[in-house]
Amino acid sequence: MSSLYLHDIPLDEAKAAWYAELAACGAFGLMPKETVPLAQALGRITAGPVWAKISSPHYHASAMDGYAVRSGDTHGASEAAPKHLSLSSQAIYVDTGDPLPAGMNAVIMRENIQLIAGGEEELATAIEIIQAVAPWQHVRAMGEDMVASEMVLTALHRIRPQDLGALAGSGHGVVEVLRQPRVAIIPTGTELVTAGSAVKPGDIIEYNSLVLGGFAEQCGAIVSRYPIQPDRYDEIKHMTEAALAAHDLVIINAGSSAGSEDFTSRVIGELGKVCVHGVAIRPGHPVILGTGAGKALVGLPGYPVSAAVTFDLFCKPLLRRWQGEISWGEGALVADSIEATLTRKVLSPMGDDEFLRVSLGRVGERVVATPIGSGAGVITSMVKADGVLHIPRFKEGFHAGETVRVNATTPKALIDRTILAIGSHDLTIDLLANQLKIENLKWKMENDITQINFQFSIFNSPFPRLVSAHVGSQSGLLALQRGEAHLAGSHLLDEDGGDDTEPSYNLGSIAKLLTPFGVRVQVLGFVKRVQGLMVCRGNPKAILGLDDLTRNGVTFVNRQRGAGTRMLLDDALKKRGIHPRHIAGYERQEYTHLSVAAAVASGACDCGLGILAAARALDLDFVPLFNERYDLIIPIAHYESDLLQPLLRITRSPAFAEQVQSLGGYDTAQMGQVLATV
Amino acid sequence: MSSLYLHDIPLDEAKAAWYAELAACGAFGLMPKETVPLAQALGRITAGPVWAKISSPHYHASAMDGYAVRSGDTHGASEAAPKHLSLSSQAIYVDTGDPLPAGMNAVIMRENIQLIAGGEEELATAIEIIQAVAPWQHVRAMGEDMVASEMVLTALHRIRPQDLGALAGSGHGVVEVLRQPRVAIIPTGTELVTAGSAVKPGDIIEYNSLVLGGFAEQCGAIVSRYPIQPDRYDEIKHMTEAALAAHDLVIINAGSSAGSEDFTSRVIGELGKVCVHGVAIRPGHPVILGTGAGKALVGLPGYPVSAAVTFDLFCKPLLRRWQGEISWGEGALVADSIEATLTRKVLSPMGDDEFLRVSLGRVGERVVATPIGSGAGVITSMVKADGVLHIPRFKEGFHAGETVRVNATTPKALIDRTILAIGSHDLTIDLLANQLKIENLKWKMENDITQINFQFSIFNSPFPRLVSAHVGSQSGLLALQRGEAHLAGSHLLDEDGGDDTEPSYNLGSIAKLLTPFGVRVQVLGFVKRVQGLMVCRGNPKAILGLDDLTRNGVTFVNRQRGAGTRMLLDDALKKRGIHPRHIAGYERQEYTHLSVAAAVASGACDCGLGILAAARALDLDFVPLFNERYDLIIPIAHYESDLLQPLLRITRSPAFAEQVQSLGGYDTAQMGQVLATV
Repeated sequence: MSSLYLHDIPLDEAKAAWYAELAACGAFGLMPKETVPLAQALGRITAGPVWAKISSPHYHASAMDGYAVRSGDTHGASEAAPKHLSLSSQAIYVDTGDPLPAGMNAVIMRENIQLIAGGEEELATAIEIIQAVAPWQHVRAMGEDMVASEMVLTALHRIRPQDLGALAGSGHGVVEVLRQPRVAIIPTGTELVTAGSAVKPGDIIEYNSLVLGGFAEQCGAIVSRYPIQPDRYDEIKHMTEAALAAHDLVIINAGSSAGSEDFTSRVIGELGKVCVHGVAIRPGHPVILGTGAGKALVGLPGYPVSAAVTFDLFCKPLLRRWQGEISWGEGALVADSIEATLTRKVLSPMGDDEFLRVSLGRVGERVVATPIGSGAGVITSMVKADGVLHIPRFKEGFHAGETVRVNATTPKALIDRTILAIGSHDLTIDLLANQLKIENLKWKMENDITQINFQFSIFNSPFPRLVSAHVGSQSGLLALQRGEAHLAGSHLLDEDGGDDTEPSYNLGSIAKLLTPFGVRVQVLGFVKRVQGLMVCRGNPKAILGLDDLTRNGVTFVNRQRGAGTRMLLDDALKKRGIHPRHIAGYERQEYTHLSVAAAVASGACDCGLGILAAARALDLDFVPLFNERYDLIIPIAHYESDLLQPLLRITRSPAFAEQVQSLGGYDTAQMGQVLATV
Repeated sequence: MSSLYLHDIPLDEAKAAWYAELAACGAFGLMPKETVPLAQALGRITAGPVWAKISSPHYHASAMDGYAVRSGDTHGASEAAPKHLSLSSQAIYVDTGDPLPAGMNAVIMRENIQLIAGGEEELATAIEIIQAVAPWQHVRAMGEDMVASEMVLTALHRIRPQDLGALAGSGHGVVEVLRQPRVAIIPTGTELVTAGSAVKPGDIIEYNSLVLGGFAEQCGAIVSRYPIQPDRYDEIKHMTEAALAAHDLVIINAGSSAGSEDFTSRVIGELGKVCVHGVAIRPGHPVILGTGAGKALVGLPGYPVSAAVTFDLFCKPLLRRWQGEISWGEGALVADSIEATLTRKVLSPMGDDEFLRVSLGRVGERVVATPIGSGAGVITSMVKADGVLHIPRFKEGFHAGETVRVNATTPKALIDRTILAIGSHDLTIDLLANQLKIENLKWKMENDITQINFQFSIFNSPFPRLVSAHVGSQSGLLALQRGEAHLAGSHLLDEDGGDDTEPSYNLGSIAKLLTPFGVRVQVLGFVKRVQGLMVCRGNPKAILGLDDLTRNGVTFVNRQRGAGTRMLLDDALKKRGIHPRHIAGYERQEYTHLSVAAAVASGACDCGLGILAAARALDLDFVPLFNERYDLIIPIAHYESDLLQPLLRITRSPAFAEQVQSLGGYDTAQMGQVLATV
């Protein structure tokens, strides 16, 4: 009998020693990437951000069964003066989902028309309508759900069922994910018998491989459970060697102590390196942490609770680390009912039970719930949802500011760790969200060694997630006024401020919308960007400036009221003395740069005002007109909160500035600088 | 073009109509049972309660590498006066896990002995010891973890990794679980193309089958995604018919509206029955709920959000119902940090990080954490754990009553819905726990029809879970005194109360332990049970009463101080004038009836005092001695709380009383009656 005793070292030292060796072997980073078909992607972790390859819808689609028409042809129709539209030239039947015929821009539901000339449908030559319709009525415009080049999922996102829909809808048939870790479990011991066997005294029923295998599977691993291996040194060694060739983590269980038949330490030593033998933890002392053939190789103790606890302490963090770790905890099966303040009024038809998707975040003491896209075709509303608000039958809706109960699918801890950005949209806000996720991972990886608070570390990370809503600059400032967001992206040109070479931004609107309400803010420089006219490839209508918008045959698409781009346009038109009514399409509003770009790309109009990045994303030509500042407006209380520090650090990081510059059309000289405190 | 419009009916009516039809088809109950090997049982739902087939350990096992000895042989050994035990007759080497040789009852760790006679181990003839050892030192007694016949898992329990260990350890190689529901999804539509295809205007990328399939998998179903089926009536019908033959739920998506190519309603009508066509919900109006070939057959709308919401509202509850429903939400991957009051002092060796499993429950305003079995071999400590308490290195432990943070794996909502029972153990307490689970399911099934609060209903159930800790009657009352439990099972004979034919119970102890502390309680009658001596099959030593305990060659096993059975014994011994020191084994203590029975069954002793049910469970003979009352002591505040009402109702249910009687040895005449208010 050997009288070797284990030398127990503290948990943090044990982890540090093992992790250092794993890092030296190249077995401490993310799993390699692999490409899988969507049908096999549920629960997998994205290897990088995923961008929409095509828009969704990828054409202007009828949202109803009915007749596609030109809105202009319907003007003047009323019950008193019905109008006839001749079939095929002025009205064409479309089913839901059909593309709008060229030139048509609205759909009239078939229950709202009468067929003219003939009891039999086939003989009808025209439809009769009794109401004019607005452009784009009952049309799902191209890009309504997703616009090509938009970020659909960030890196290191655990793919949920609704994410599969968003991936498919944006043109993906496959997705790049982290390969699943492969884990081998080798039960050793002459006294072991398989579960369900008849037993005699001294037999030990082997079930650690079931328990450890189950935990490993729950961590996303693919598990091989090896047959029971009696305590014969050569065979254990041979089996371990074979397992190392095909797995990322090999667990020998047990023989990890220093008894007469405890071979594990010797096996690991001969096949690789024993970094740690014995850790000062209870239960679990006799654990062996090592490497072999560039893989993780451990010996776990035989007592079942010791085996499970040491697996939790050493193997689980490694499995999670290999898979980007932070994904755990999202997309939980369990939901909880959470009280929240509704940011917008919602109306619901009487007589229907309505289920509205909302995003959730804590601002100060309140959890605020913001309704997201109500269209039934908008799969991204499910991707972005943190919960569902039920509006009962016979309830007309809820007021803005009302307290509601939301069935949350995002864990409370993550809701509390959410930065809500609202206001004008810029592609760089998506990049910021992705970067927070990446930094979170980096931080976790660095802190894993010193942290011993096992298993639950996702909730300890200082890195918040960033959730953004795109409502335009002015609505963003209004949200800050109401305390519904942590920051707002804004590019509102001041009416009288600054000179033409260095115009002033946002200060006027802040003075009007925030200061009187006691909201003091920092104006944080973010990007300067080029605004201009997006036109079709080759600029076939030779649009060179705003003056061309009034030309015959040139159609425009506008941004919504309150958008900075819209105010920029209106200001410029005023200065040039151009009246909006002379611009065809001035009334058609889109809510983001990308949707303006999508409208141009689809041929629905000739041009729209927007940023270079959006034009590039959809392969449009671009006529630069203005340089404008896009700032982040941050109430001082939030600016100074722990929550925002990681985001502020990123805005000051040269690496992030480089990422933004590589998009093209951005100047990052003022990024991260406080330009004003108001 | 048809001008048929859907007649939307309210959600609750729609559910009721469909559920009634499903019930009529026999498609509304639990899935049938099937038997699966443990390696395939992770995540599955138990079809019934699972009882231990063998004890664990199933023999007295050495807990250390060392020498098995008879405790008596070590008496008198000290550093000043070492003792020699001759090898093979007085001391036998055992490895951890080895069975104790016959007659031996303790193990001395090998580091605490010296080998005598010979530098070489092989030549040693004796060991030298310098300390006496108590009986059962370093021995894992048979049944320490689980005793044969104990309930290991209740019915309708979702099997977690640690549960696999408990099943295997208690003699199971397979387990009876509910069959997984099989779901077919048939995407229909001539305009549909598969994900990743090149698209032209009018093409719709089919991804609902991915999204719905993902959700169904997350609900535990096995999913068949059928290839896209163009809008051709006969083919859709044929494919649906084939799917019905092999699945429990068939989803046709979409064609559920009333358009020119919407065939779904007709297909369902011809293959079975359309119960509902059109529900007043948003999104999701055009949904078809039906049956066919005795299976559930639905048509879901084509818009992705509508499809997902209607799946959530109609299909998910059905899938959960088929699987016992209440299992969802347990064993979550996500853990949360919860503040709790520790009920017992815990000590931890300096220098070790210790991880202690605890059970959690809310009593009044506080969440209380009770440490459970610290032995590393006790897999049931992981089965019962609601969370893990970390005792950091260099911390000696925590005081009783100290506030600690626990990493909880049981969701908060379930912790809040926990009845904590503490005190004396009786098999009927396990039955109560199982019955609450069954009643929960029944309630859910009945209320499913009227409830429309979709998806999250697990948290709305009025049925709590029952968690019990077995510490003996007196310790149970002390726990009530400290506000750490909702009720205590107690059978403490009053010293002077009552007469011999109807002795009085518990009132004296309550007057001493609760009344002075302002705790007013109801004494709720539960069972009367027969206490007697458990002896080996055939009663080889002819033990007929307490007087036989003092006979030469008769060994006894006792219950711990504070246990009602112990007090019963001590009272009877006193009355008969028998002195404990004349009883061999009076000092050996076990904590439950079943472990006393296990000690007798293993041959470690000849008899012990306990209840008939425990003797029956381990196939022992039984010498009845007393009838005793086992009451539930319930503080009035808890007795009147909503939490306890379901449990109180069960104690008054004749069906439950019958279940208890069928165990044998129980009288339930007073079950559910308030016997006293103190």
